[in-house]
Amino acid sequence: MKKLVIAYSGGLDTSYCAVSLSKEYDVHAVSVNTGGFSQDEINHIESNAYKMGVSTYKNIDAVSTFYQKVVKYLIFGNVLKNNSYPLSVSAERIVQAIEIVEYAKSIGAEYIAHGSTGAGNDQVRFDMIFQTLAPQIKIITPIRDQKLTRQEEIDYLKANGIDMSWEKAKYSINKGLWGTSVGGAETLTSEKALPDEAYPSQLKHAEEEKVKLTFIKGELVAVNGVENEPEINIEVLNNLASAYAIGRDIHVGDTIVGIKGRVGFEAPAALITIKAHHLLEKHTLTKWQLQHKEYLSSFYGMHLHEGQYLDPVMRDIEAFLQNSQDKVTGDVFVTLKPYHFNLDGISSKHDLMSAKFGSYGEENKAWTADDAKGFIKILGNQNKIYQQVNSKQDD
Amino acid sequence: MKKLVIAYSGGLDTSYCAVSLSKEYDVHAVSVNTGGFSQDEINHIESNAYKMGVSTYKNIDAVSTFYQKVVKYLIFGNVLKNNSYPLSVSAERIVQAIEIVEYAKSIGAEYIAHGSTGAGNDQVRFDMIFQTLAPQIKIITPIRDQKLTRQEEIDYLKANGIDMSWEKAKYSINKGLWGTSVGGAETLTSEKALPDEAYPSQLKHAEEEKVKLTFIKGELVAVNGVENEPEINIEVLNNLASAYAIGRDIHVGDTIVGIKGRVGFEAPAALITIKAHHLLEKHTLTKWQLQHKEYLSSFYGMHLHEGQYLDPVMRDIEAFLQNSQDKVTGDVFVTLKPYHFNLDGISSKHDLMSAKFGSYGEENKAWTADDAKGFIKILGNQNKIYQQVNSKQDD
Amino acid sequence: MKKLVIAYSGGLDTSYCAVSLSKEYDVHAVSVNTGGFSQDEINHIESNAYKMGVSTYKNIDAVSTFYQKVVKYLIFGNVLKNNSYPLSVSAERIVQAIEIVEYAKSIGAEYIAHGSTGAGNDQVRFDMIFQTLAPQIKIITPIRDQKLTRQEEIDYLKANGIDMSWEKAKYSINKGLWGTSVGGAETLTSEKALPDEAYPSQLKHAEEEKVKLTFIKGELVAVNGVENEPEINIEVLNNLASAYAIGRDIHVGDTIVGIKGRVGFEAPAALITIKAHHLLEKHTLTKWQLQHKEYLSSFYGMHLHEGQYLDPVMRDIEAFLQNSQDKVTGDVFVTLKPYHFNLDGISSKHDLMSAKFGSYGEENKAWTADDAKGFIKILGNQNKIYQQVNSKQDD
Amino acid sequence: MKKLVIAYSGGLDTSYCAVSLSKEYDVHAVSVNTGGFSQDEINHIESNAYKMGVSTYKNIDAVSTFYQKVVKYLIFGNVLKNNSYPLSVSAERIVQAIEIVEYAKSIGAEYIAHGSTGAGNDQVRFDMIFQTLAPQIKIITPIRDQKLTRQEEIDYLKANGIDMSWEKAKYSINKGLWGTSVGGAETLTSEKALPDEAYPSQLKHAEEEKVKLTFIKGELVAVNGVENEPEINIEVLNNLASAYAIGRDIHVGDTIVGIKGRVGFEAPAALITIKAHHLLEKHTLTKWQLQHKEYLSSFYGMHLHEGQYLDPVMRDIEAFLQNSQDKVTGDVFVTLKPYHFNLDGISSKHDLMSAKFGSYGEENKAWTADDAKGFIKILGNQNKIYQQVNSKQDD
Repeated sequence: MKKLVIAYSGGLDTSYCAVSLSKEYDVHAVSVNTGGFSQDEINHIESNAYKMGVSTYKNIDAVSTFYQKVVKYLIFGNVLKNNSYPLSVSAERIVQAIEIVEYAKSIGAEYIAHGSTGAGNDQVRFDMIFQTLAPQIKIITPIRDQKLTRQEEIDYLKANGIDMSWEKAKYSINKGLWGTSVGGAETLTSEKALPDEAYPSQLKHAEEEKVKLTFIKGELVAVNGVENEPEINIEVLNNLASAYAIGRDIHVGDTIVGIKGRVGFEAPAALITIKAHHLLEKHTLTKWQLQHKEYLSSFYGMHLHEGQYLDPVMRDIEAFLQNSQDKVTGDVFVTLKPYHFNLDGISSKHDLMSAKFGSYGEENKAWTADDAKGFIKILGNQNKIYQQVNSKQDD
Repeated sequence: MKKLVIAYSGGLDTSYCAVSLSKEYDVHAVSVNTGGFSQDEINHIESNAYKMGVSTYKNIDAVSTFYQKVVKYLIFGNVLKNNSYPLSVSAERIVQAIEIVEYAKSIGAEYIAHGSTGAGNDQVRFDMIFQTLAPQIKIITPIRDQKLTRQEEIDYLKANGIDMSWEKAKYSINKGLWGTSVGGAETLTSEKALPDEAYPSQLKHAEEEKVKLTFIKGELVAVNGVENEPEINIEVLNNLASAYAIGRDIHVGDTIVGIKGRVGFEAPAALITIKAHHLLEKHTLTKWQLQHKEYLSSFYGMHLHEGQYLDPVMRDIEAFLQNSQDKVTGDVFVTLKPYHFNLDGISSKHDLMSAKFGSYGEENKAWTADDAKGFIKILGNQNKIYQQVNSKQDD
Repeated sequence: MKKLVIAYSGGLDTSYCAVSLSKEYDVHAVSVNTGGFSQDEINHIESNAYKMGVSTYKNIDAVSTFYQKVVKYLIFGNVLKNNSYPLSVSAERIVQAIEIVEYAKSIGAEYIAHGSTGAGNDQVRFDMIFQTLAPQIKIITPIRDQKLTRQEEIDYLKANGIDMSWEKAKYSINKGLWGTSVGGAETLTSEKALPDEAYPSQLKHAEEEKVKLTFIKGELVAVNGVENEPEINIEVLNNLASAYAIGRDIHVGDTIVGIKGRVGFEAPAALITIKAHHLLEKHTLTKWQLQHKEYLSSFYGMHLHEGQYLDPVMRDIEAFLQNSQDKVTGDVFVTLKPYHFNLDGISSKHDLMSAKFGSYGEENKAWTADDAKGFIKILGNQNKIYQQVNSKQDD
Repeated sequence: MKKLVIAYSGGLDTSYCAVSLSKEYDVHAVSVNTGGFSQDEINHIESNAYKMGVSTYKNIDAVSTFYQKVVKYLIFGNVLKNNSYPLSVSAERIVQAIEIVEYAKSIGAEYIAHGSTGAGNDQVRFDMIFQTLAPQIKIITPIRDQKLTRQEEIDYLKANGIDMSWEKAKYSINKGLWGTSVGGAETLTSEKALPDEAYPSQLKHAEEEKVKLTFIKGELVAVNGVENEPEINIEVLNNLASAYAIGRDIHVGDTIVGIKGRVGFEAPAALITIKAHHLLEKHTLTKWQLQHKEYLSSFYGMHLHEGQYLDPVMRDIEAFLQNSQDKVTGDVFVTLKPYHFNLDGISSKHDLMSAKFGSYGEENKAWTADDAKGFIKILGNQNKIYQQVNSKQDD
């Protein structure tokens, strides 16, 4: 039988795929952990996979890869899609797709199957990356092609001896290092917020808590002075801040297929890290670094969201972003509070808010009143000429 | 004596200017209300002005002008400088400068005096607009030129028969329609937050409160169904939300003179209005409208901040922004909570999140699985060609 | 029989479509003249159309519409795709598609047929505009669907009694107001230029010739002092300049389907008008108007090229561009020479290069040496602080 | 006496400075060759310098530094200010300023003098770079401060025993690797072109000539197959192409002090290299690389022109540009003709115009008609929804 790799999550859709494809193919299930799975969950997925009749199951731990390939640059760029969403799921899918296709190539698979429908973003991200990195591998998508109902899938599984409980959760949850997405009845229309209970984390603390985040060249190297790999620090911060129910919102965005979508999310570490990092940049970067980073980061987010991670322009932008982080080193002081957080301030040896040079709002020493007058006079030249030339015209 | 108009706030600096300039000039004091003054405060300023020996005093009510000339476009553009600051003070200064110079021209003044120092942004905004709109009028700036200490100013006033209490407040407050700035010891360095008590509004309510904001073509035409002029609605919203201590933050930015500055602010209506307006746009504008608005709005904010309001490019950007608001009509549902707020959702007849067409995450009806596959195949063409052409090269 | 509108050009492909579709549908042929057809050519197309068995034929004169809807903004934006191509064909197709679909709606047609293949840009432009403006009308594309060879089409036509000469020209020519595209063997690969004889116009004059172009608010209102509608002036300029073989080049660009394409073009009026208009703007617009126009115009060109003319962002950009033209009024002096042209200079009452204010390179009167020193000192502040703060770090 | 370094060109202004400053300071003259001087000219400058009484004279050969620090990135970015000017002089001044200040530091000078006036760009570039890199060194600018006439300077020199011929050339010429600027009576106003004879090079050949330019990772490594350092190749190309009088134009731009300026230039190698490089990029870069490079390059040119070379954002942009050149390798075929040139085509192993994949305008093999229909259907989704949602509204 021909070798097929299936992106397997343990849910109803991919279970249906695994069972039905096993009749025709030598099926190798793979899941890619980008921060959403505990070891227990992975064990559970593994045991289910074998129940579905797959030949092998493998979990790929891609948390560090995810950080190095994508999350790092999302932090460097302070990327929040439409000014609110840290691109949690979009970002994960890219790395999952790359890991899956590399795995398929490594075991000589001729097919890759995934469980995406034909309506959303994930099919685009998966297909494009598979086709680009392995044009010789064929893509199989039973869910997209067959459009079965949940009940039809459950019946099929039962008929094939798989009798499990497939109750649909009230809220569909997708967990990862860079945030958890939450879908439910409310997100299908435009009017309503998600209720508190829809979010996986609940408020546990009422007392506020101070946190110190340490960045070196833009990377989060320590939380409260404890050094660790940035991806570990992000998890630590997620744990700290989710107890305050921080980082909840609903993203409204444009899907790659051109329709608007709405999705809830809970991403405490992503939001705090980005906002803290951005604050440190406001102190250490020049005005034009901040301005041009904004342009590039906004497009970096758009292209990533749209599955264009392999466009070489992404490497070019990453080179800019990496270079811009040279002085983004220092501590950021954050206060966690119920449902929100404050950025208290920063400390950095690269801080450009230098009291020695001349301080804002106070009389300075670096230039005189006459210097300031000369500056303003010349700075205003073009507008003055424009006014002079064009007001005459109106006579 | 030669006629001079002085921008008079009633503070120590402009009082010193008024007294000393009255010895040489026929001084006409003017204050411009962009939303910061109550009638009581205006009366108080007026009575003080006459004590300083000015010939006339006039308060110009520019709240509506401020909204029409600047605030409206800051909302259309969702302008938050460095992603946080609604440009409260920057925006006010522009309109104040225009009103003052128009007043000076109307009474035939040959001089305008203002109390800015040589260290900050305001001198640039004032001088540039004065020089552009009235190149024939000379600008007098005693504070910038003489660099007196507070005590020297107080002594001078006392010597001239003005014996008032000029105690320096612990926090300097600058109030306006679009926000209140707060400066203090903490904002002179980078590390610390402002304490709660530094902010003019204090938390009064613990229970959350729902608010409905109604926009027509991007303008806030009603709060909770009560229609009014947008500038009135902003004030209403300021009153509602400041009781929740919403909208506090510290802005870190680049001054026009090239140094970094830090300033606290409290701008509940500005932040809620912009975030609500932006959400409505995410539902009613296309992806490319959102994207290009971001570029233009970011520069609109930069130019406004830097006093370049009279550059004709600002009118060009306003034309774009105005045009983009054609369908930005609908209700936005907001929940006010202590220290923060949630955007619950929107309702708009222009909502592009149309369930009839095909809904996100659900199987759609507008296209087939094969359509989706064709779409993805072609969308990925360039990256596939790039990979194909360039991977060969590495052989 | 069901009513079908066919976009008919008189060539082999659309003739094949007309004949074969007439067996099943009530076929109404339409051609849209965007500047490429003489009356003789239209008469010839008409007579051929009836030979193919269509019920009616109509030519729509859309030259003025083409100018008003698209060409005007391409001039305002100085749009040259990839800095060289005036988007001649892309721009025409948009207007042709709109005219065709409006015609189809006006006569109650249920189908529109066009002769595009499945490989290029035109299918995307036609289909997208048809589907958007008339979702109820079905699109029929025999050439795309059947992939016949030229010989199969010729044989089919002969079998149906149409025995005409269908020799393939060595170079395929597509003529319009805003330029003529030229394809041939050389443009299928990357190495070679098109030979002189491939271009429709040939060098007739050796002596140079002066031309004066007059713009009012960005529109070309007169050539050599003779006033006329802008679209007429463009034709006049095409005639003048094509005698100098001006405006030839090869465009290398990205098609909407993601592959690179190469196409020759001859667009004398487009290139001269855009370069002349841009020069006038350099004298009359501010630095920031020029800068932001560049960003928007570049994207305007991209979106237009990709068939996204109906995206409302295009109307927003047009509002910006229209507003920016307020002072773009004056004469531009051009010299035509064999194969190239020079812009000699301009004359405008809005010229900001005002000798009275202070002239470039000469000692000025509007500011002093001390003003200049103050200006430079403060302008350099941020870089100085950056250097000071960060060079210490390297110790 | 205190040590002073003077930027010495041998002209009247810097000669006046050298003589007058030698009375007070220990004057060390320095000239920086960025491609404009022959050895004869340097010898002549040296001998004149000593006549003016300087202690030492040194010429710094900075051609290679100029290429590595600036020209390389101007090519990578295809930078043409206002779409026409290769920034010849702006670019040179930056490198000259850096070399001069480094030299001054190396010999322990306390002062640097330069001969710029207070009206133009050069004073800004010089002062800002001197102040940033050596805040401790004082800047002396006799020409800016004293505003003498030419005759007063000549008289002063004569009175000090310097009796040379200081006739003013009809056209002031500033020669460098990246182009020669030409100023004259015509460039002081807006209407007229420079006459042929104003340009340093004159037409020598009537017969056209083919040139092959070879690029590796964006750098010009060979001309007609002869390999050499890029800066040498640029000189070779200047020699070849100036014999055709190629590369002449007049730049109209905004000076840093806000007034418009007009300057003629002759820059054959710069224009040919940039256009050839850009063509190679159109074949080897993706659509989004081309698009984002355009944004960054345009600002790179603006910042460089305005003397902001030391802003760290310039290093960030350079990192992007460098990275983008990875595949910009291949040959470009150019034909030189009298007064203009043609780009014939390119050959590159990284050419994305791959005939194997599917060729533009021909029926392709990589996708089917149905794929194309699916692509278009989904690509048009947002505009269709927009039309559907909003046309209902107008009922």
